[in-house]
Amino acid sequence: MKIINNIKEIRKQVKDWKNDGLSVALVPTMGYLHEGHESLIKKASEDNDRVIVSIFVNPMQFGINEDLSTYPRNIDRDSDICEKNGASLIFNPSVEEMYTDEFSTFVDLNNLTSGLCGKSRPTHFRGVCTVVSKLFNIVNPDKAYFGQKDAQQLSIIKQMVIDLNFDIEIVSCAIVREADGLAKSSRNTYLSKEERQAATIINKSLKKAKSLIKGGERDSKKIINFIKNEISKEPLAKIDYISTVDNNTIKSVRTIEDGSLIAVAVFIGNTRLIDNFIYE
Amino acid sequence: MKIINNIKEIRKQVKDWKNDGLSVALVPTMGYLHEGHESLIKKASEDNDRVIVSIFVNPMQFGINEDLSTYPRNIDRDSDICEKNGASLIFNPSVEEMYTDEFSTFVDLNNLTSGLCGKSRPTHFRGVCTVVSKLFNIVNPDKAYFGQKDAQQLSIIKQMVIDLNFDIEIVSCAIVREADGLAKSSRNTYLSKEERQAATIINKSLKKAKSLIKGGERDSKKIINFIKNEISKEPLAKIDYISTVDNNTIKSVRTIEDGSLIAVAVFIGNTRLIDNFIYE
Repeated sequence: MKIINNIKEIRKQVKDWKNDGLSVALVPTMGYLHEGHESLIKKASEDNDRVIVSIFVNPMQFGINEDLSTYPRNIDRDSDICEKNGASLIFNPSVEEMYTDEFSTFVDLNNLTSGLCGKSRPTHFRGVCTVVSKLFNIVNPDKAYFGQKDAQQLSIIKQMVIDLNFDIEIVSCAIVREADGLAKSSRNTYLSKEERQAATIINKSLKKAKSLIKGGERDSKKIINFIKNEISKEPLAKIDYISTVDNNTIKSVRTIEDGSLIAVAVFIGNTRLIDNFIYE
Repeated sequence: MKIINNIKEIRKQVKDWKNDGLSVALVPTMGYLHEGHESLIKKASEDNDRVIVSIFVNPMQFGINEDLSTYPRNIDRDSDICEKNGASLIFNPSVEEMYTDEFSTFVDLNNLTSGLCGKSRPTHFRGVCTVVSKLFNIVNPDKAYFGQKDAQQLSIIKQMVIDLNFDIEIVSCAIVREADGLAKSSRNTYLSKEERQAATIINKSLKKAKSLIKGGERDSKKIINFIKNEISKEPLAKIDYISTVDNNTIKSVRTIEDGSLIAVAVFIGNTRLIDNFIYE
C-alpha cells in the first residue's frame, strides 16, 4: 500500500488522477482501523475510481486531559486493512506537516457543537472542523465518507460543507457492531476483559429504548430516564450524557419524531464510548 | 459584462474554463470599485486567462453599529470598470445565496486578528475569513488578489491560506492614491468637501514618519507619538489607532525594522479611514 506523508505529493497525485478523469474519495480517519472504517473504505471503493484513506491522530481535537498520547496506532496493520478494502493510498502526514509553528486558524460552528459530545469536549469539534477543512483542501475529493457512530460529527460536517461551500458530497455509513452489539471503536482496545463485558450495556439499553419508542412512547424525558436506569444497572458504567436531539440541528427535542437522534456517551472505567440510533 | 448571481452557475463556468486548461483569478470586492480595485483587476488580467470579480457586501464583516446599510453600491458603474480592466465576469450573489437560515460556521484566527482594526472591529476579520473561505471554495481560483491598503486583512488571509491549505496563491497590490495622497477607498465617498480636505492629513503624517524612519529614527514609541501629534493638528480627525507591528504576525514591535508595518485608522467626521506603509 502506497503511503504518502507529504502535502505537495498527495496534491500532485490527486491532480494527476483528476486530469485522467478519475473520481477521488476521501476517508478521513485517526487510524487503528476497525470494521467500521472498513465499511467506509469498501463503500468508497465501490463508488469512486480512487480512494485516499487519511490517517492522522489530530492533536487539535483532543482535550488536554484526553488520550492523545495513548491513542492506539499501528500503521502496518492499517495498511493491510486499506489494501484489503480497495484503498488506493494512505495519506499519513506528521503533526509538523499539518500544523506549522505559526498555525492560528480555526473553523468552528456556532450551533450544533455545544450539546452532546461538545459539552464534555468543548474544543473537540473545533479541532475536527479545522482538520477536516484542511484535509478537504489538501485532497480535494469528490466525496468524503464518515461513520454514523459519530452522529454529531456527521451533522456538523454536513452543515460545515453547506456553509463554507465545499464542493464535496458527504456520504455516511451505518454503525458496525461486534456480535454482542457493542459499536466498533478504536477505543474498545482500552477495555479490560471485565470492562469489555460491561460495555455491552450501552447498546442493549439503546435497543430496548428503540423498542419502547416503536411501541408508541414518544416522550423524550421518559426515554432518557429509561436508558439512564438501564445503564445504571452496570456498576462499571458512568453516564456522560443521554440526549434526544434533532439529527440535523442537534437541538434537544421533547418529543421523539422521525429523524430524532438518541445519543449516549458512557464511561466504562476510564474509557469514554459513544453510541446512538436515529428513530425513523 | 456577464454577471452571475448563482453559486452553481459560477462553479460550472470555472470547471469549464479549467477543463480547457485556462487559469482563473479571483478579485474579491464589496463593489463600488475605485482605482485600487482597478489595479487588482488589471494585474489579475495580466497574470491569468480568466478573471472573476466578486462583488458582495458581506454582512458578516460589519459590526452592528457600522455602515452596512449605507455602504455605497452601483453595479452598473462597477460592471463598466470590470469590463474596461479585463475582467471575464462578475460574481454578484445575494445575501440569501451566500448565507442560509441555518448558517452557523465561521473561520477565524487566534492571533493576527486582535490588534489594529481587530481591536475596534472585534468580529470583522471573522466575517472576512469566513466569506473569503466561501468565495475560495465557490470559485476555486488559482490566484486571488488583495490590496495592500488592508494590510492586516492581507496578512490574515495569507496565514489562513497556509493554515487551511487552500491551494491558492495570494497576490497583493500596492495602495493606489488620489493626487494629494489620500488612499483610494469606497468610503471616501462619505466625506464632505471639508472632510475630504481634512483627510489628507492621514497620508501626509505617514509620509513624514517614513522620512523620519529613513533618517534613522527606529523607536516605535517616538514614531507613533510623532504621527499622533501630526494628525492631531487636524480638528476634524479623531485617531482610532496608530500602530507599529510586524507585517506577518501583526505583533507590536518596539523597534522599526525591515518588514515593520506602520498602520493607522482615523475617523474623519464619522468616516473611518485606514492607511499604512511597510518600512523596507
